[in-house]
Amino acid sequence: MAKSTETEHPVKAAGWASKDTSGVLAPFKFSRRATGERDVQFKVLYCGVCHSDLHMVKNEWGFTQYPIVPGHEIVGIVTEVGEKVEKFKVGDKVGVGCLVGSCRECDQCAVDLENYCPKQILTYSMPYFDGTVTYGGYSNIMVADEHFVIRWPENLPLDIGAPLLCAGITTYSPLRYFGLDKPGLKVGVSGLGGLGHLAVKFAKAFGTHVTIISTSINKKKEAIDNLGADEFLISRDTEQMQAAAGTLDGIIDTVSATHPLVPLISLLKPNGKLVLVGAPEKPVEFHTFPLIQGRKTISGSAIGGLKETQEMIDFAAKHNILPEVEMINIDYINTAMERLLKSDVKYRFVIDIEKSLKVE
Amino acid sequence: MAKSTETEHPVKAAGWASKDTSGVLAPFKFSRRATGERDVQFKVLYCGVCHSDLHMVKNEWGFTQYPIVPGHEIVGIVTEVGEKVEKFKVGDKVGVGCLVGSCRECDQCAVDLENYCPKQILTYSMPYFDGTVTYGGYSNIMVADEHFVIRWPENLPLDIGAPLLCAGITTYSPLRYFGLDKPGLKVGVSGLGGLGHLAVKFAKAFGTHVTIISTSINKKKEAIDNLGADEFLISRDTEQMQAAAGTLDGIIDTVSATHPLVPLISLLKPNGKLVLVGAPEKPVEFHTFPLIQGRKTISGSAIGGLKETQEMIDFAAKHNILPEVEMINIDYINTAMERLLKSDVKYRFVIDIEKSLKVE
Repeated sequence: MAKSTETEHPVKAAGWASKDTSGVLAPFKFSRRATGERDVQFKVLYCGVCHSDLHMVKNEWGFTQYPIVPGHEIVGIVTEVGEKVEKFKVGDKVGVGCLVGSCRECDQCAVDLENYCPKQILTYSMPYFDGTVTYGGYSNIMVADEHFVIRWPENLPLDIGAPLLCAGITTYSPLRYFGLDKPGLKVGVSGLGGLGHLAVKFAKAFGTHVTIISTSINKKKEAIDNLGADEFLISRDTEQMQAAAGTLDGIIDTVSATHPLVPLISLLKPNGKLVLVGAPEKPVEFHTFPLIQGRKTISGSAIGGLKETQEMIDFAAKHNILPEVEMINIDYINTAMERLLKSDVKYRFVIDIEKSLKVE
Repeated sequence: MAKSTETEHPVKAAGWASKDTSGVLAPFKFSRRATGERDVQFKVLYCGVCHSDLHMVKNEWGFTQYPIVPGHEIVGIVTEVGEKVEKFKVGDKVGVGCLVGSCRECDQCAVDLENYCPKQILTYSMPYFDGTVTYGGYSNIMVADEHFVIRWPENLPLDIGAPLLCAGITTYSPLRYFGLDKPGLKVGVSGLGGLGHLAVKFAKAFGTHVTIISTSINKKKEAIDNLGADEFLISRDTEQMQAAAGTLDGIIDTVSATHPLVPLISLLKPNGKLVLVGAPEKPVEFHTFPLIQGRKTISGSAIGGLKETQEMIDFAAKHNILPEVEMINIDYINTAMERLLKSDVKYRFVIDIEKSLKVE
């Protein structure tokens, strides 16, 4: 008989889980594996709330395994390390993002792109090497192979910094890979949520001229005053969009609701690049003429590799790039999810796990 | 009162034109401008028949100006040059492709990408600088600014070489620009018509491993024996397609009929590039997940700049890359168009203008 999630491993753990497609989260007892020779065990202090968590608790992407403990923007303090661990010691500040495993052998892993390894193991709701299901950071304790653990810079706040581990790398990586990190380039950021606001901050740190494309005029003042964006376009204002046609070198499109791509493609210069990092559930549709006539590109990009994630965290610390967050207690999570669905957050919820997660 | 097409210019010309959306072509008298100081006038010997000609004579792209004389794969012998012409003299072999004008001032023109100039002037059915409409190569005489005239290499046959001027550059340019020109890379070519068969030849000349993706098993033997392709996939054979998933670095998609992109995206490795050079009339539709999960790219590409077109022609001459053509007389053109619609040609029709175009 299979062991229960509470007893399958020796280390007792507590978290919040959803047990069905209602997505409602509630306290949940489970267990973590003993610290393996290359594992790092850490006490979770804070965990960001990503839009993916919302998709996953409701099984909107079709591969959720219930019960699911979400959370992949996890930071904390090391409590135990395996005997072969080289990078960390007890007391170190660390983080874990979206991945806790990959094959370490394929062409992608060989070039530090574990995020494109076909055998990658997500931080929650996927089978780990030992056959048990992974549980995320809405929990008091975490254990992961040191390869998938990020060293946290001393001057980077643990609490508000947590969202860098997913929202940060998801926007930093495509800006780098698609060459949108050169001073003077004109970069668009479509959607101004958890991902979008960090895309703006990274793009500004790279010295580019940043245009936000948003449905909501309400966000304009703050985007320019606080986030440092240079321009703000209302995507539904046809006149404004037409006046800006052909002006951008690239756009990071963070919108995960279904939305038309053609207006964004129109904003691009010839050779311009539209990079999708949000994942609409429905298919997108577009005419190929605008792509062909301007040698334009539509690409996707998913988080980043571990090496690049460390690079991003170090870059954020050096350039003082910090997410704008609303700190919440874990018992507020279901309300937070409802607000997230309505984009009613500036710009990311972070759960204060240490303060609010009760461990009986 | 506007002058007639027959008398608006001083040089009498004869060609075949379509006068309405039936697309039926018939003999047509018109006129060409006097050779300007930077112009090259040449006697047309051969002209290729491009799928675009078919779209345009029927106004399927919505911007045709009737009467239309199609043809943008035009080769011939120089008969007159303007006094400031530097590159050509009477008797030279020359070619004209898809473009006869551009602004020469914009960012695109500045880097030899006249093909992405917003003010580009197509070789037929567009207003020229003087306000008259351009006429293509289904005609006995051609005149063009020398900037838009290609020097024809001595050892490259004029007759069968003509299709290089559109089909050749349309496939050569994206192979170069998207980095699919490195020995050992795995390159797919979707569709095996006028464009596709030249994509295969260029990709082989670059030293890549070439896989053809086609709907028709009938083309397999010849594609491997004569064109030198390494592999051949039937796009409707799900098993075959699945076995080849994730194996290609890039695909040049030459299919201009509406077709699903997802099976092609599936063939790509992570970071793989799907480049569309055919232009389906209807919008394409696809799920963004496969793009995001593999950092894959869908791009378009349109012909090439003049500098690159000269480079391509010289490369073709050096590497003996020749289109496979069926030579026809001009009075066969309406039948040829019908056959083209059914993809019933290996792989390009070329009109023997000198032999068959009657000039009264």
